[in-house]
Amino acid sequence: NLTNHEQKRAKVLTLDSMNPNVKRVEYAVRGPIVQRAVQIEKELKEGVKKPFTEVIKANIGDAHAMGQKPITFLRQVLALCSYPELLEDNMFPEDAKKRARRILESCGGHSIGAYSASQGIECIRQDVARYIERRDGGIPSSPDNIYLSTGASDAIVTMLKLLVCGEGRSRTGVMISIPQYPLYSAALADLGAVQISYYLDEDKCWSLDVAELRRALNAARQHCNPRVLCIINPGNPTGQVQSRQCIEDVIRFAKEEHLFLMADEVYQDNVYAEGCKFHSFKKVLFEMGPEYSSTVEMASFHSTSKCYMGECGFRGGYMEVINMDPEVKAQLTKLVSVRLCPPVPGQALLDLVVNPPQPDEPSYTTFMKERTAVLAALAEKARLTEETFNTVPGITCNPVQGAMYTFPRITLPQKAIDKAKEEGQVPDMYYCMRLLEEEGICLVPGSGFGQREGTFHFRMTILPPTEKLKVVLQKIREFHLRFTQEFS
Amino acid sequence: NLTNHEQKRAKVLTLDSMNPNVKRVEYAVRGPIVQRAVQIEKELKEGVKKPFTEVIKANIGDAHAMGQKPITFLRQVLALCSYPELLEDNMFPEDAKKRARRILESCGGHSIGAYSASQGIECIRQDVARYIERRDGGIPSSPDNIYLSTGASDAIVTMLKLLVCGEGRSRTGVMISIPQYPLYSAALADLGAVQISYYLDEDKCWSLDVAELRRALNAARQHCNPRVLCIINPGNPTGQVQSRQCIEDVIRFAKEEHLFLMADEVYQDNVYAEGCKFHSFKKVLFEMGPEYSSTVEMASFHSTSKCYMGECGFRGGYMEVINMDPEVKAQLTKLVSVRLCPPVPGQALLDLVVNPPQPDEPSYTTFMKERTAVLAALAEKARLTEETFNTVPGITCNPVQGAMYTFPRITLPQKAIDKAKEEGQVPDMYYCMRLLEEEGICLVPGSGFGQREGTFHFRMTILPPTEKLKVVLQKIREFHLRFTQEFS
Repeated sequence: NLTNHEQKRAKVLTLDSMNPNVKRVEYAVRGPIVQRAVQIEKELKEGVKKPFTEVIKANIGDAHAMGQKPITFLRQVLALCSYPELLEDNMFPEDAKKRARRILESCGGHSIGAYSASQGIECIRQDVARYIERRDGGIPSSPDNIYLSTGASDAIVTMLKLLVCGEGRSRTGVMISIPQYPLYSAALADLGAVQISYYLDEDKCWSLDVAELRRALNAARQHCNPRVLCIINPGNPTGQVQSRQCIEDVIRFAKEEHLFLMADEVYQDNVYAEGCKFHSFKKVLFEMGPEYSSTVEMASFHSTSKCYMGECGFRGGYMEVINMDPEVKAQLTKLVSVRLCPPVPGQALLDLVVNPPQPDEPSYTTFMKERTAVLAALAEKARLTEETFNTVPGITCNPVQGAMYTFPRITLPQKAIDKAKEEGQVPDMYYCMRLLEEEGICLVPGSGFGQREGTFHFRMTILPPTEKLKVVLQKIREFHLRFTQEFS
Repeated sequence: NLTNHEQKRAKVLTLDSMNPNVKRVEYAVRGPIVQRAVQIEKELKEGVKKPFTEVIKANIGDAHAMGQKPITFLRQVLALCSYPELLEDNMFPEDAKKRARRILESCGGHSIGAYSASQGIECIRQDVARYIERRDGGIPSSPDNIYLSTGASDAIVTMLKLLVCGEGRSRTGVMISIPQYPLYSAALADLGAVQISYYLDEDKCWSLDVAELRRALNAARQHCNPRVLCIINPGNPTGQVQSRQCIEDVIRFAKEEHLFLMADEVYQDNVYAEGCKFHSFKKVLFEMGPEYSSTVEMASFHSTSKCYMGECGFRGGYMEVINMDPEVKAQLTKLVSVRLCPPVPGQALLDLVVNPPQPDEPSYTTFMKERTAVLAALAEKARLTEETFNTVPGITCNPVQGAMYTFPRITLPQKAIDKAKEEGQVPDMYYCMRLLEEEGICLVPGSGFGQREGTFHFRMTILPPTEKLKVVLQKIREFHLRFTQEFS
């Protein structure tokens, strides 16, 4: 009989003998703070006394979990697709039935339980292409360039995987913003690619400056082969919406510097601020003329998880590739075929998003009412969040122009920073852990997204219902004042 | 203005500059032959004359695409989960409503549109654990060891990713059967791991012999670090069902040789042959006593895509890990969190599979009738396939003891082999392409799964409805005789 220690030594797979790239992966949005939040929820259920009665998880853009109701039309069609016997029922509107029939007819054996083509169901890819054409004022889009995916994350990781190669100083470098959405840094760690950080300008509303891109690129050229530039617009976690001019500058930079552009545009319908407008990278690229539109290689990503739908659980999404070498496209198609296909219910859902009820259809009025209500409430909450935080001494907050998050800067007293060090935590993690333990509010420390040395932030979603959001903001305010006083 | 050639040269991402591991990935189940089949289908639609009127895709285990009807109970609950307003309706049985309510209550905001925990919804993991305990005669299973996944493929790739490390001669080697399911070779190519091939014994009904495992292992030790042994039982593409004795031998071998066991058991309900029975690796492991059950590290995989459900499109599945180092488990949990969660509709579906209607519930009778009918039809088709093929001179076929495929051996005349070489194709690809063009039947050449040098096979699913299967078998028979004659 082996002792515990010997058993441990005898294991095939240990921390020492596992894939070292996986060890380097970090994903703060579901990191230690969220694990503690789940634990606290269990403790509350078991009757443990806390200074609060529920944990509010403002760590992740999970709209339905925050009480947002699903859009009726989407769910009616999904129910019809799941159980086609309902097509005989009178309780569903004709346009919902029509969409369901069209989706089912494009499925093997007329069942969403059949595998689809690995690139996604053809008629849905056609609908996506037409949706992009409408969005971009008629600039052509081909279904052959559309790849449906398991949420946007899947497509982003797949694209990065295609792009990464080389060893040592010729290893592929990938430019990502700081702050960033940590899927990017996680995927780069996993792939063993080199992360090239460029900083967004907090003083200019988290805008992107090409001079900073150039600085980061030149520095990186000393130790890797920069080939990819990733942009998130509207920004996550920063909430900025890029101007048309900025996008043009970025595209010009990508062309000059021979970079593959990855445009994460999953928040394209989430734009709230006066004077801000979503410009797709593709549209700007094509408006810059053939010198750009026929050369710059790009992939753009979208998802069913955000915008007004918030259908995260279905894992629907797509990417459009532009100017991709046909031989590489064949390799991409081969690569995605290994996983067989994206979830078909998610594909069906995406089809409804890109092909919503039309003014002459029975579901139109309800659909528009629900959609508008969600987006209007988000706009209101974006404003409320910015305003409230900016009244708190020691918290400064840029406007939430778009997306679903605020990333305010917090000033921490030196004594708090020292205390965190004592506890073996980075200062903003210490701050967020204390907030969780004392107020039951779960945020993500800024260090999980990256921030300029010596600055501290947190990311909070603006998704809680307005009344609850007010409570959250009030609680954070009180906590911040108390915390600051404690360490003054 | 650039010429085409210059444009091509100017691309960031080309076949030469892409990830070389991706280039090495191959996945025959959806390879060139399937692409040609899709093309032919389009040609038929456009009115092109062919010697047949439809393409029968027997290349993939896609039950619903082959006309198998979804199980009513599963789809009723999924419709209820998608559109909970239906819970008010009288058309659904109470047990379906009860399951839907329980699933919805465990979802954030009571919506399957919310993200779940990355490891999967907790109450579903509990149901999976109880299901495993029932299956294995009470051997304990913990929900903490269950990871829900996006089909089994996802979990298999994730496990392999954890296990692969080292460079050169210390690079991780992974033992896979030949013939194999090409997800394995594809994942190993992608990860840059070393594939160690062990051959199944076609003359002994594709059984696995530990002497062959040892031969393969010893040879591999010269050039890599073998750490993982993958088993598919029931076998894909070979359809064999391993005996209890064989499983015991494999486990003993894994322990002796310090290998991590990966048991792909997605066909565990698909066992047809007299005297054959599915034995889970976990059950055998625990019956071998604590010397084994407390040391051998293992992961077992299951899926909603096969068995009687055939719900491939939902991408549901799970893995159970056994004796995994807790630190590694934490890394695994972190790694899966980057992709947020498996599709929630697929998780819901899995819950129904592991928690089906009970004898005292209203859906029980229909459920059992449907389930039994699917499995009985598969058993009948397994027998029919074997019998028919074995009447064709030049085709020999082992019994389809389980799973959903037959992998018969075909004798090809030397002149056909020469002709294939002329055409730049491997001989069984040439054979299958000819079959597709002449009869409209899409199979996968044996070379896509691996086979002993100089032997040729194809994989065919037994899923077409009995009457159609008879036609398929007859057409293959005629083609084979014609093909053989042509090259004699």
